[in-house]
Amino acid sequence: MEKYFPALSAEFARTLAALKGRRLAVVGHARPDGDCIGSQVSLARVLRALGHEVICVNTDPVPRRLEYLVGDLSFVRPHEVPATEDWVSLWVDCADAGRAGDKARERFPKPFANIDHHLSNNGYAEHNFIDAGAAAAAEILAGIFADNKLPVDALAAKALFAGIMTDTGQFRFNSTTHRTFLLSAELVALGASPSEAGGEIYERESLGKLQLLQRFLASLTLDCGGLVCTGSLPDGIFQETGTSVEDTEGLVDYARAIDGVEIGVLIEERSGAIKASLRCKNPIYRVDQVAAQFGGGGHACAAGLNLKNIPVAEFRPKLLGALAAQIANVSKTAKSAS
Amino acid sequence: MEKYFPALSAEFARTLAALKGRRLAVVGHARPDGDCIGSQVSLARVLRALGHEVICVNTDPVPRRLEYLVGDLSFVRPHEVPATEDWVSLWVDCADAGRAGDKARERFPKPFANIDHHLSNNGYAEHNFIDAGAAAAAEILAGIFADNKLPVDALAAKALFAGIMTDTGQFRFNSTTHRTFLLSAELVALGASPSEAGGEIYERESLGKLQLLQRFLASLTLDCGGLVCTGSLPDGIFQETGTSVEDTEGLVDYARAIDGVEIGVLIEERSGAIKASLRCKNPIYRVDQVAAQFGGGGHACAAGLNLKNIPVAEFRPKLLGALAAQIANVSKTAKSAS
Repeated sequence: MEKYFPALSAEFARTLAALKGRRLAVVGHARPDGDCIGSQVSLARVLRALGHEVICVNTDPVPRRLEYLVGDLSFVRPHEVPATEDWVSLWVDCADAGRAGDKARERFPKPFANIDHHLSNNGYAEHNFIDAGAAAAAEILAGIFADNKLPVDALAAKALFAGIMTDTGQFRFNSTTHRTFLLSAELVALGASPSEAGGEIYERESLGKLQLLQRFLASLTLDCGGLVCTGSLPDGIFQETGTSVEDTEGLVDYARAIDGVEIGVLIEERSGAIKASLRCKNPIYRVDQVAAQFGGGGHACAAGLNLKNIPVAEFRPKLLGALAAQIANVSKTAKSAS
Repeated sequence: MEKYFPALSAEFARTLAALKGRRLAVVGHARPDGDCIGSQVSLARVLRALGHEVICVNTDPVPRRLEYLVGDLSFVRPHEVPATEDWVSLWVDCADAGRAGDKARERFPKPFANIDHHLSNNGYAEHNFIDAGAAAAAEILAGIFADNKLPVDALAAKALFAGIMTDTGQFRFNSTTHRTFLLSAELVALGASPSEAGGEIYERESLGKLQLLQRFLASLTLDCGGLVCTGSLPDGIFQETGTSVEDTEGLVDYARAIDGVEIGVLIEERSGAIKASLRCKNPIYRVDQVAAQFGGGGHACAAGLNLKNIPVAEFRPKLLGALAAQIANVSKTAKSAS
């Protein structure tokens, strides 16, 4: 059978051989998501099945909705790993070593392996397994495991499936390919359950999160001739709804999902400071360039910014002005190109 | 290679042979969804490629978000097909002939073929292609086309993919299997684009629909000790938000998706009448039995009811009482079984 990642898989086999007998720490990023935890769990389980002592290391705890993947693995914080102990570190889903947090970087200053799918990954480890064409770090791992016929048990398969499912927005982002579906089929055959993943990940909302969504939806306005949809969350909303910063995840996608809207915006007021998230449907709008005008950054379709000491009433028209200018620029370029 | 649907595919080949030279009408159900339109488009395109003259027939128009699948096919209403013309009818995604609407049944009284995945399908056609284990009618068609090496062009592949994607809730309902992912991989190889499908189907909301969602979320209450979450839409909300009955689709899922909630409820007030939708996470709650107490019905996890001449203030406590009794019954049974 054809290999999913021929070069990476061969290098992985060599790397495994070099790790024989070593204790392994699988490091994930701060505020871990489905792809991070899914990649950590699956890699840790496969390595443990091969005879290694393994721990998973994160600066932040495993989110409630991903706890079903943890099983009997130990997830620890960087400071809980004694400095006297010798652990080889394998990093997953981290575009750069900073993504794991300062404490992780201090405890594991020499990343041994780096498995990731971010275009911006700079290859910070001794052995780098990077494919920016993969929909998830979990897709790379699933492929490498299959190519090398490594022992993937049911929980490892569930973890890989969760990583792929979340990082593809349930199989619909641009990154979702023929290979994504083939590997998902293999994972289901190995014990992954799409309905279990769906229930655990998407059907465990808090009432507070829905109240946050409700408040966000109530604030939506169409701007820039209907091409921009803006929603905002006032200061104090987290206390009011019993939610936290993490619960704002996904809100801005509702603004972007409106027919005719090209750019969705979320403006959060947090005790005098402002955080804004920008999302567009089409990369030609380069919202990272707009965010950069306010000291922020990100990707062409997903960017953000943080500002201090500016009231929303002052910031909002500035941001909408910058977006209007960007849209005008884009349509001018599109016209002159046609 | 192993066949996806060996028996159905062999029978389909024989049926095709019998249809040689005939004009074919591909009939779908009223208020068509992604699986209905996806199945109709793909079957019609394959049959046309095989040399048949083909039309698609529906009582209701193709929804806006599925229009990208129509291409150059003709979708017509039953009354637009002259009674003098001779068309052989092939029905897709219709559990019974009534699902297509009275006019379709009158115009095509003798269904020739019936391709469906509903458990309750009673085999109303001359040739029946039913597999209740399939996630979508489009999954059956995709499998049959692959098994028989029939010509599936890019738009047919997109249509089949849309059918599978929507009927599996983006690859997460219980019906999603190893086969679902294998066939989806094949469809992507044939030209289906997950991101195009995601954009067309899930990123073309109206602002009114989001306002409807906002109003529904604002009304949510936890009942029956947190096991039931109920939301309601008052009379006149459609005019107020510029929406229609179709826009309520999916609202009740937000109520069900709360952690700890087992049953989500939507109560709609429509000029004196009441429509209620019940959804549960676990089939043990049999919401169809609760709906039946009010003259409604449905499936174990998804049921509904319609009542006239009862105010919401009177209906709501009755429904919650019936749900509380059902929950008590279920936990009693669960206890005595353990």
